[in-house]
Formats: sequence, C-alpha cells, structure tokens
Amino acid sequence: MQYPSKLIEDAVNEISKLPGIGKKTALRLALHLLKQEESATKDLSTALLDLREKTKYCRICHIISDSEDCTCESIRKDSSLLCVVEDTPDVIAIQNTAQFYGYFHVLGGIISPIEGIGPNELNIDSLIERVKSSQGSIKEIILALSPTMEGDTTAFYIAKKLQPFNLKITTIARGIPIGGELEYTDEITLGRSIAKRLNYDITSD
Amino acid sequence: MQYPSKLIEDAVNEISKLPGIGKKTALRLALHLLKQEESATKDLSTALLDLREKTKYCRICHIISDSEDCTCESIRKDSSLLCVVEDTPDVIAIQNTAQFYGYFHVLGGIISPIEGIGPNELNIDSLIERVKSSQGSIKEIILALSPTMEGDTTAFYIAKKLQPFNLKITTIARGIPIGGELEYTDEITLGRSIAKRLNYDITSD
Repeated sequence: MQYPSKLIEDAVNEISKLPGIGKKTALRLALHLLKQEESATKDLSTALLDLREKTKYCRICHIISDSEDCTCESIRKDSSLLCVVEDTPDVIAIQNTAQFYGYFHVLGGIISPIEGIGPNELNIDSLIERVKSSQGSIKEIILALSPTMEGDTTAFYIAKKLQPFNLKITTIARGIPIGGELEYTDEITLGRSIAKRLNYDITSD
Repeated sequence: MQYPSKLIEDAVNEISKLPGIGKKTALRLALHLLKQEESATKDLSTALLDLREKTKYCRICHIISDSEDCTCESIRKDSSLLCVVEDTPDVIAIQNTAQFYGYFHVLGGIISPIEGIGPNELNIDSLIERVKSSQGSIKEIILALSPTMEGDTTAFYIAKKLQPFNLKITTIARGIPIGGELEYTDEITLGRSIAKRLNYDITSD
C-alpha cells in the first residue's frame, strides 16, 4: 500500500504491530487521531509509556501492580484459598464473578514447549515457596487454567510439585457453559459433562 | 471492571477511546505491550505523537502530507483530470487501482446535517478556486464519493457549484461489484444496474 506521507506510514506500521490489528484498521485509527484534538494523542501515548515504564509486578502474587507490594496481602481475604492463574486478565475475570474471596498467584504464562516456555520461565518456584512459608495456612490450591493441552500440562506439573504439602488441590469445573445450547456444544465438552455428571441438588441454585 | 493497577486502568481507558476498540481488546493490547521490549512501546508512542504534531495538509489538494506542498503538483500526471474524494483512505484506495492518473482534491469530509457538517466545513471553496485558477486546463471532475445519501448530497452540491465552468462532470460507476454474486446483490444496486445497463462491447475487457 502506498501512503501519502511518511508520518502516516510510520504510524500505520507501528499500530499494525499490535495483535489483531491489520494495516487497514491501523490507517483508520491513525486518521481518527488526526481528527481529534492533539491532547487525545498525547494522553494516549503518555498512558502507554507510563504503563510500560512504571508497571511493577507484586513480588508475592506476581500480579501487575503500581508498586512491588500490591494490596494482595493487606486486604482481608480468605487466606486458606489460593487460586493459580495464567495471567492478569484471568485475575480480572475471576474477580468480576464475585465468587472468589481468596488470594491469587499469577504464573505469568503457561508451559508450552512449542513457544519454548518451560516451568522455569513461570512463577512456579515462588508458588511452592509461598505454600511452604505459609506453614499450613493455605489449605486449598485452585488451578484455574484454560482447558487446553498446555493448561492441563501446567496443572499436572504444579499438582505434582505440590503433592508433598498435603493440600486440597482443585480445578475449576468444566462442562457446558450457562446459557449454552446443548446441541451446539462441542462433543468433547458434552461427552465430559455427561461422564462427570453431578448429583442434582434441589436446594442449590 | 476492576483493574489491578492504576497504570493499566489508564492505559485501557485511553486505548478504548479509539473507534472499534472495547475495554477487553484494550486490555489485551496493553498486556501485549507489557510483554514486549520497552522500545516497542516507545516507537509506537513516538510514531503517534509525530503523526499528530507534524502532519500537514497540502494547501493545494488537502491530502495528508509531510509538508504543506505535497508532491501532487510536481509529479507528471494528467492535469486535465481532477478526482474529488471524501478523505485520505479514498486517495490510497484509488491510487492502488492504478487506473487513475490525474490529480486529487480531498474534501476532508462529506456534507452531513446530522453531524453538523455543512459545505463550509469542507474544502469546496478551494476546489472552485482551483478549477477557476486552472484557466481551463482541468477538463473533467470525477466525483468519487460514497453512494450514500450524504455522498449524493455532496456530489449534487459540488456539481451545482461547478456548473458555470463548462466542465465534464462524472461520477464513478455504480453496479454489481466484480466477482459479486448476482443473487446476493441488494435489490437497489441490482435494480439500478439494470436501469443503467451498458452496451456490451465485444472488444473491451
């Protein structure tokens, strides 16, 4: 594609490096910024630079934070529960359910031999350390990882590592999504949800 | 949505101001930048700032340019043809066809009473001036505007204004797109393409 100016070409090239954004969308975004006040672009680029330069990771739970001590330890939560997730969006998603009142541990990724990510690249050692130093106050580890091959591998690896600590290790329930149509559910999910069927409890919601 | 840090919240808010980008996509983009080298974010924000601060508009054709004199007048083109378009993406799209060798005139928008854009907000006066000062060397004006109500209104307004100059005024052909399936073409387009049918020329492609 030929662009009428070097400036717009540079901007389109940089924007289209972002995942899921092609050259056409990048051009549309660049032209949008050109039509807005100059302050809009300034605010955007300042927010991006600040994010990249100042973001810290909590040294306990490894979540993205404004400082190296996030509020994870100071807020009164159920300290017997620790939920292990792949990354920050999972923390946000689980917090938004308002169904979990324990602590988080962010792995920072998932074991994936194809992408060259092994256990040592992830925050697994610090998870073991955290469990060890809790001296038994952590009673249950919830492995909230994606139901993919990588997720299952990671869960298996962590469960193995945690075996000596005599903890309850759980994983989030898998089955057909609430509101999902039975006939459109893929056969593996549907098959598993029949094999792992639950007792129907008339008192629960 | 609750975010684990103020920095990421600010970044998500700024990114999601862009058209077509919601909070979830914005979060994904922000986390992507966090995983890249710091230079990636720096390059992106520099490109955006440069684009917004340094972009000029050619004072003749009003296209986005690195300076106030774009190359529009210096490149050897067919000076008898002038193509009027709404905005820069249209120029890029027409240039990519390699079917047009004349000059462009960018209106910078389209007449839209709903959005409060009248003829005075657009580069219409400068178009008239350009035609006048060409002293008859411009022979044909091609109105390459979108086939919408706003596009048709703008085309009609410009055609009226250009009437005294005794020019050939044309508009880009409308009909079923090449490669389009007849049965899936909307009825207005199909109806018009029958009413405005062309003589079949066995020698043309």
